[in-house]
Amino acid sequence: MNILFVMYDQLRFDYLSCAGHPHLHTPNFDRVAARGVRFANAYVQSPVCGASRMSFYTGRYVSSHGAQWNGFPLRVGEMTLGDHLRKLGMGCWLIGKTHMKADAEGMARLGLAPDTEIGARQAECGFDAWARDDGLWGEGPDGFYDAKRSPYNEYLKSKGYDGTNPWADYANAGVEDGEIASGWMFQNADKPANIREEDSETPWLTGEAIRFIEATEEPWCCHLSYIKPHWPYIVPAPYHAMYGANHVPAATRDARELDNPHPVLNAFQSNKIAAAFRQDAVRRKVIPAYMGLIKQCDDQLGRLLDYLDETGRADDTMIVLTSDHGDYLGDHWLGEKDLFHEPSVRIPMIVCDPRAEADATRGTTCDALVESIDLAATFVEAAGGTVPDHIIEGRSLLPWLRGETPDWRDYVISEYDYSVTPMRAALDVSSRDARMFMVFDGRWKLIHFEGGFRPMLFDLESDPDEYDDLAKAGGHEAEIDRLYDLLAQWGRRMSQRVTRSEADLDAMRGASARKGILPFLTDGSEVPDELTVKYRGPARQVYVEDEGD
Amino acid sequence: MNILFVMYDQLRFDYLSCAGHPHLHTPNFDRVAARGVRFANAYVQSPVCGASRMSFYTGRYVSSHGAQWNGFPLRVGEMTLGDHLRKLGMGCWLIGKTHMKADAEGMARLGLAPDTEIGARQAECGFDAWARDDGLWGEGPDGFYDAKRSPYNEYLKSKGYDGTNPWADYANAGVEDGEIASGWMFQNADKPANIREEDSETPWLTGEAIRFIEATEEPWCCHLSYIKPHWPYIVPAPYHAMYGANHVPAATRDARELDNPHPVLNAFQSNKIAAAFRQDAVRRKVIPAYMGLIKQCDDQLGRLLDYLDETGRADDTMIVLTSDHGDYLGDHWLGEKDLFHEPSVRIPMIVCDPRAEADATRGTTCDALVESIDLAATFVEAAGGTVPDHIIEGRSLLPWLRGETPDWRDYVISEYDYSVTPMRAALDVSSRDARMFMVFDGRWKLIHFEGGFRPMLFDLESDPDEYDDLAKAGGHEAEIDRLYDLLAQWGRRMSQRVTRSEADLDAMRGASARKGILPFLTDGSEVPDELTVKYRGPARQVYVEDEGD
Repeated sequence: MNILFVMYDQLRFDYLSCAGHPHLHTPNFDRVAARGVRFANAYVQSPVCGASRMSFYTGRYVSSHGAQWNGFPLRVGEMTLGDHLRKLGMGCWLIGKTHMKADAEGMARLGLAPDTEIGARQAECGFDAWARDDGLWGEGPDGFYDAKRSPYNEYLKSKGYDGTNPWADYANAGVEDGEIASGWMFQNADKPANIREEDSETPWLTGEAIRFIEATEEPWCCHLSYIKPHWPYIVPAPYHAMYGANHVPAATRDARELDNPHPVLNAFQSNKIAAAFRQDAVRRKVIPAYMGLIKQCDDQLGRLLDYLDETGRADDTMIVLTSDHGDYLGDHWLGEKDLFHEPSVRIPMIVCDPRAEADATRGTTCDALVESIDLAATFVEAAGGTVPDHIIEGRSLLPWLRGETPDWRDYVISEYDYSVTPMRAALDVSSRDARMFMVFDGRWKLIHFEGGFRPMLFDLESDPDEYDDLAKAGGHEAEIDRLYDLLAQWGRRMSQRVTRSEADLDAMRGASARKGILPFLTDGSEVPDELTVKYRGPARQVYVEDEGD
Repeated sequence: MNILFVMYDQLRFDYLSCAGHPHLHTPNFDRVAARGVRFANAYVQSPVCGASRMSFYTGRYVSSHGAQWNGFPLRVGEMTLGDHLRKLGMGCWLIGKTHMKADAEGMARLGLAPDTEIGARQAECGFDAWARDDGLWGEGPDGFYDAKRSPYNEYLKSKGYDGTNPWADYANAGVEDGEIASGWMFQNADKPANIREEDSETPWLTGEAIRFIEATEEPWCCHLSYIKPHWPYIVPAPYHAMYGANHVPAATRDARELDNPHPVLNAFQSNKIAAAFRQDAVRRKVIPAYMGLIKQCDDQLGRLLDYLDETGRADDTMIVLTSDHGDYLGDHWLGEKDLFHEPSVRIPMIVCDPRAEADATRGTTCDALVESIDLAATFVEAAGGTVPDHIIEGRSLLPWLRGETPDWRDYVISEYDYSVTPMRAALDVSSRDARMFMVFDGRWKLIHFEGGFRPMLFDLESDPDEYDDLAKAGGHEAEIDRLYDLLAQWGRRMSQRVTRSEADLDAMRGASARKGILPFLTDGSEVPDELTVKYRGPARQVYVEDEGD
C-alpha cells in the first residue's frame, strides 16, 4: 500500500467540474472522485499556507503545533506524518512545497545538525525530501525570499533558461511580442508565461513524481505538493488562452458586506489585495489565468493517473487530492485567503482507496464535516497503524470510505493569526490579540476575534453566500452563546499530553502500588490477607492490587 | 546575583507561623518573610507533584507543557528554567526532587543520548543535577518505584545504615522498643524515625546545598527541592514528639459536603485516602508528624540562612520559599491533594530579593493572585533577562517586590488530570475526560469537569471554608457564566507560538516585500515612484516598503 498525497496550493473547493464549476472541466480530478469519495465539506485549520500545512503534516490544530503563520518555525520535536508512518514501515517523501520553516534555534539547542538524517527530517517537517521547492523565488533588495536552493531553478538552468533566477524571468513572467512582463502584475495575467509548457512548474513536479515512483520500493507515502494555482497568476500557452472574461463568474459579493462591516473584515477589505480584486478588470484577467493553471494541473494529474494505471500502481496506491486553502478572487470584496468565508477556508478533498473495502462508496460524495487534520489520521490507519490520538487530533476518514457512519464531530475549527500583517497595525491590536477563530457546525458559522471585537455570525442555511453578518445587529445571542460554548470546549481539549497514550495510561494504573508506594494505610488491616506480601527486611510492606498513587 | 529556589513538597500554605498557624512556630520561614514579601494568594497550576513542578520549571500551564500527572514525561524540547537562565549566564542546578520523567522515546527519536550534556539536561528538566533524589524509594513485587540511583540511599549506606534500601528501613520507618514499624502505616506516625536526625532527608539536602554553594562560582540558580513534609509521615526525634493531639486543629469539614456531593468530589471522598483521614485517630497521629517534619524544615532553613548570613551570600542571593501543592489532612473529608480546595491548591510563596530596590516592601504581604508559573518569569527578570512571554506564561513578581502595582491577572487557573487514578474507573469516564479545571478570581471559585458533569462553585467571601457548593442547587448562573467565559478566554490563550517572539514578529513585517514577494499589484502604478526599484533582469520588479505577505 502506498499513499499519493497530492496538494494544490490555493485551489478553491469549487473550481473543479466534480464540484460544480460551470466552465472549468477537470476530467482527471473527476476521475479520482469517481474512483473514491469526494468530501464536500472539508475545511482547513488555517486559511494560510504555512499554518494550514503544518496542520496537515502534524494532524494537529494550529494552536496545538504553534506554527501559526508563514515562516513561523514548527517547533523541534513536534511529531509529523514522517514520524508516524516510518514507525509503520512506510517511507514519507516530499516532492514540492511545504512552506515549513525549520526551528533552527531549537535544533541548535538540542544539538541537531541539519546534515544528519534526524536533523534533516526535523528541518523538512518529517519528510525525506526528494525535491523540495516552495515555489516562491522572489528576489528583492534584501535578497531571495527563500534562502534555500531551488531545484526548480536548477532544472530550468539545465534546460537552457539563463540568468540567476529563471523562475522569475521565465516560469513566472509573461511574454508578449518578445517583451517580458512581470508575473507579479495582474495586468499581465492574460499573457502566456515565458516558458515551454513542459518546463513549467506543474509538469516538472509531475515528472519528478513519476521518477520517484519508478525509483522507490514500496511502501511509501509521497506528498506531491504542487505550487500552483497559487500566484503569480500566469500560465504558459495554451492554458493562458483557454478561458476568458465570459468564463469569469460574478463575484460573490454584496453591498451589505460594506455596510458597517466588522472592523477586522473592514481592515482586510481595505488592503491592497482587496483593492486590486475589487476591480472587475483584475478579476477578468486573473481568474482565467487561475483557471488555466488548474486546467494544467488537471492535465498533469491525468498524466500521472495514466502512469499509475499503466504500471498497475493504481491498484495499491491511495490517492488524495486536496489543497491548503482557497482564494477569494474578489468574493466578499477580498483577495487572497486569510478569513473564513467558504472560498477561503473550504477545500477540495477527494480520497480514493483502491482496496476492495472501499468499493461500496466509489463515486459518492460525503457531507461529513472534515478537517484537514483528518488526513494524518487517515494515512496512519491506511498504513496499518492505530491512530495515536494523544498526538494526532484528526480522525481517520477510512470509515466513511468503507460506507460506515462513524460517530463524528459536530463542528470544525479554523484559526488565523494576522500578527505580522499590515492589518494588525491598521487595527492597532497587540500581536497576541491578532488572532481569530472560526467555529462552524455545518449551518452556523461563528467567528471570534481576540482583542475585544464583537464576533461575526453567518447562517449558511438561509444565507449560503455569507452576506448577512447576523452579529452586526444583534438578536442571535442564543446561537452565539451555543457556538461560543463549542469553541470553549475545543479550547479545553487535551492537545499536549503527547508523551502518554491511552494504553500507556492504562498500564500505569496501580503500577506504583506494585512498586511499594503504599501511603494510605492506617495500620495495614485495610489489606486483605491474600494480598499481604512481606517482601524484604524489617519494615513490613504490603502489596495492594490495582490502586493508583 | 544568585537565586536559591527552595521548594518543600506538600507543604500547606497555612502551616507556617507567618501565615497564622496557631501552634506551629516557624521562625526561619518568618525570617525570610520579614526580609521579603509573602504572597498570600499563590496557587499551583495543578495540585499534584509532577504536573505542578513541570509548571514551575517551564513557567507554563499544565495544558501547555502536557506533563499532566506524575510520571507523564515532559516532552523533549519543552523549554525550562535552565534554557532561559543559562542564556543569561546563570547556571541552573538541582538538589533534591523534581519528579520529572524524561521523554525517553522523544529523546531517542531525536537521537539525544542521556550521557551527553544536552541529553542529560533534557532528562533532568533542564537542570544540572548536583544531587537528584525524588525521595520515593518504595519497593514492591515489581521492583523499585523509582528506577534511578538514589544518592540519599548511597549517603545512608556510607553512614553505616545497612540493607539495600535504608530509605525504607531507617529514614522512613519508625522504631519503638527496638521494633521496626513501617512508615507507610499512619498508626506509626507518632513513632520516631529509625535514624539519627542529622542523617534524615531534610538535613542531608541542606548539607548538600551548603556544599553546593561553597563549591560553585556565581551566578547560579539552585533549586533546593526538599522531599518533606510529603509522606511517609514520619520524623526523627526530637521532632516526632514536639506536637500532639492538642495541636491538631479541627478538620475543616462540614456535613453539607457529604450531602448530595458532586459525583467527582464523592469519588475522591470515597477513596481509601479519604477513608483514612476521616478517622480522627489518623489525624491525631499524622498531623503532629507533619508538623514535626515542617519544624525540622524550619530548623534546617535556619541553618542555611545562618550560613548565607555568615558568608555574606545573603546579600547577593534571592531566596524563594514555596511548595508544589498542599495536603488536605482530612479537610473536606479528603486526604492528599488532587482537588481545588484551598488546603490543596494554595501554597506558601515567600520571596526575598536582597537588592535595594526591594527595600520598600520587606516584611509585607501581597494579596495579588499569584500562579506558580510566575516564578520562572521572576527568575528570568532577576537574572537580567526579558521574559520570553511567547514561551513563559507566568509574570514576573519583581514589580510587586519593588512596591509597584502592575497590571495583573484577574483570575488563576489550576488543572487536574485523574486519568490514571482509581477515581477515573469509579466514575467510568474516559481518560480524555478525566480532567478538571479551576478558575478562581479571588472570590468566586468555579470548577469545571470534563465528561458531562455539572460544575462546582464556591463564594470564598461568604463561605471561606468552601462548604457550600453553590452549583448544587442552582441559582448562580450569572456567576457561573462569567467564570466560564474566563476559562474560555484562557482556553484560547496562545501557548504554542514558542518559536517566534514579539520582536521576531515585528521584524517579519514587510520582510517578504523586501525580498521580492509582490503579489498584489495591478500594473505597478500602485507603487510610488521613489519606491520603484529595478533590481535585476527583464522582469521588472518593485520594492514596496512596509507591507506584509
